[in-house]
Amino acid sequence: MEPIIECVPNFSEGRRPAIVQEIVAAIASAGVMLLGAESDPDHNRSVVTFAGSPEAVSEGAFRGIAAAARLIDLDTHAGEHPRLGAADVVPFVPLEQATLEDCATLAQQLGKRIGDELALPVYLYGAAALRPERRELPDVRRGGYEALKDGGIRQPSRQPDFGPARVGPAGAAIIGARRLLVAFNVFLNTDDVEAARQIARAVRASSGGLDAVRALGMLVQGRAQVSMNLLDTNTMPLHRVVEAVREEAARRGLAIERSELIGLMPQQVLLDVASHYLQLEGLHAGRILEWQISQKQRGLPSA
Amino acid sequence: MEPIIECVPNFSEGRRPAIVQEIVAAIASAGVMLLGAESDPDHNRSVVTFAGSPEAVSEGAFRGIAAAARLIDLDTHAGEHPRLGAADVVPFVPLEQATLEDCATLAQQLGKRIGDELALPVYLYGAAALRPERRELPDVRRGGYEALKDGGIRQPSRQPDFGPARVGPAGAAIIGARRLLVAFNVFLNTDDVEAARQIARAVRASSGGLDAVRALGMLVQGRAQVSMNLLDTNTMPLHRVVEAVREEAARRGLAIERSELIGLMPQQVLLDVASHYLQLEGLHAGRILEWQISQKQRGLPSA
Repeated sequence: MEPIIECVPNFSEGRRPAIVQEIVAAIASAGVMLLGAESDPDHNRSVVTFAGSPEAVSEGAFRGIAAAARLIDLDTHAGEHPRLGAADVVPFVPLEQATLEDCATLAQQLGKRIGDELALPVYLYGAAALRPERRELPDVRRGGYEALKDGGIRQPSRQPDFGPARVGPAGAAIIGARRLLVAFNVFLNTDDVEAARQIARAVRASSGGLDAVRALGMLVQGRAQVSMNLLDTNTMPLHRVVEAVREEAARRGLAIERSELIGLMPQQVLLDVASHYLQLEGLHAGRILEWQISQKQRGLPSA
Repeated sequence: MEPIIECVPNFSEGRRPAIVQEIVAAIASAGVMLLGAESDPDHNRSVVTFAGSPEAVSEGAFRGIAAAARLIDLDTHAGEHPRLGAADVVPFVPLEQATLEDCATLAQQLGKRIGDELALPVYLYGAAALRPERRELPDVRRGGYEALKDGGIRQPSRQPDFGPARVGPAGAAIIGARRLLVAFNVFLNTDDVEAARQIARAVRASSGGLDAVRALGMLVQGRAQVSMNLLDTNTMPLHRVVEAVREEAARRGLAIERSELIGLMPQQVLLDVASHYLQLEGLHAGRILEWQISQKQRGLPSA
C-alpha cells in the first residue's frame, strides 16, 4: 500500500466563511482526501484536515498556504490564539505506511518551496526542525506575528529557516512534522480565566502535570477554557486528562460545562474513552459494526 | 446501492472451538462478510455476526443452521443461558438500504426452507412473527429445549410455524427479524446472584425500569452478572443503562467490576458514550480520522 500522510494546517481566519472556503477549495484542487474543516470564530482560526499520498498532500498544503497568504492580512487579524502567520502551523502527520521521517522530509521540501516561490519566511518545527530550539511549537510561535514585525525577524534567534528575513501581512509559516495529536478544549462553568490558567498549569507536562499534555487557560465565549493538545494518547489517554481537569475544577468549586474537539480524533481514542467509562476491557475497532463492514468492503483484514 | 442485511445467529456451543469453527466456515462458504465470532464458555454459547446481500445472508444462515443441527446435541448441552436449539436464535437485522420488512420476509422464507429441508421445528419471532404471542423472544424461548421434549412441542401453544411438531437433539430454531440491538453484560464485585437479579428487575422495561432494556441476573464465572439487551440505543443509550446499573449496585454497597460486549456495537453507540462522558456535544462519525479516510477511499460521502 502507498503511504498516507495527513496534513492539519491551521489558518488565521475563522470569521469569514468565504475566505475559509476559498482556502479549502485550493487545497482540495490538489487531489487530496478532504477529511474535515472547522472554523472557530472566537479563536478566529480554522483547522483543515486532509490526507493522501506524500506528493498530493505536499501540493495541497502549498496551494492552501498560497491562498491564505493572498487572502489573510494579519495586521487586521485579532483572536485569542497565538499565531505567526496566515497559514500559521502546517504539520504533516504519518498515517498508514508512513513514518515521521517521511513527514519531516516532506516538511523541509515544502518549506524550501514556500520560501522560494511565495517569498514567505518559513520556520521548521517538530521532527522537521533544523535547529533544536525550534522543536517545540510554542517556542517558535512565542510573541506571535507582532514580535516578528518592525525588524524583529532580523534577530539571529528569529532568522527563518527558508525564505526572506522580512515579514509582510501574511506573516510567517510554521511547517513541520509530528505524530498524531488530539486538540481538545474544556469549558468551565465560570468566566474566571485565572481558574482556567491555574488548571492548565496543573495538568500540563511543562509545569509538572500530566505527561504529553500541553495546556493554556483562556477566555472564550465568555467562559474560562482549558485549551489542550494531547501529544500521545497511547500513554496519556483523553479520559485521564479530562478527569484531571474535572478534579482540578472541582477543588475550586467549579465544573466542566462542555468540551470541544478540534479537528479529528483517532478511532483508538474513542475506543479508549468508551473502554474506560464502561469498564469494558479489550474493546477494539473490530467490535464496531460499521467499521467491520467498511474494512470488508475495502478488502482489508478486520481489526 | 444494494441492501445489506446483518445476521447474528446464536449457537448453543461455546466450549469446543472446533465445532464453532466448522459452523463459522459453513456460514462463510456462502460468500457473506464475516464480521465477528465469539464464544462464551460460561454460557456455552457462541454468537456469529455476518452481513451481505439478502440472498447471501439467507444462504449463510441456512448453512450455519444445518451445520449446527448436525454438530450440536442439546441432550448433552449445559449452560446458564436459556435456549431452544442448536442454532438457537437467528435474527436478521436491516443495515444499509434495507428495511425491517425485508428482514421479516427473509426470515419467513428461511424458516420454511429450514422446516422443509432440514426437518427442524421453526418458530418465527420479532417482526417476522406469524403469531402475536411470538413477537417477544423470551416468550418463544420459555422453558427451553427441555419444555419441548417428551411431547411438549405438540401442545397447541408450541406448534411450530414451520417443520415437524417433534424435536430431536438439535432442538428447534428460532428465526426472526429485529432492529439492531446491543448485547451488554455487567459483572458485579460479588457472587450474590440475587443482587444481580434485583438489579436486572430494577433496570429492565418489563418490570417498570428503563425503556427498551431487557435484563436477567445470573451467576457467571463466579460473579453476579446483569445480562442485558438494549433494544433501542437511540432512545435509551448504553451509558444511561450502565449508570443505572452502577447506581443500583451502589445502593446495595456493590460496584461494577467489569463489563462485556457480546457481538458488535453500532458506531453511534460508541460516539454517544464518548459524547456523554466527555461532555462533548455533537460528536459524530465524521470526527473519527480512520472512518473519514475509509469513507473517502470507498468513494462515499463523509458523515
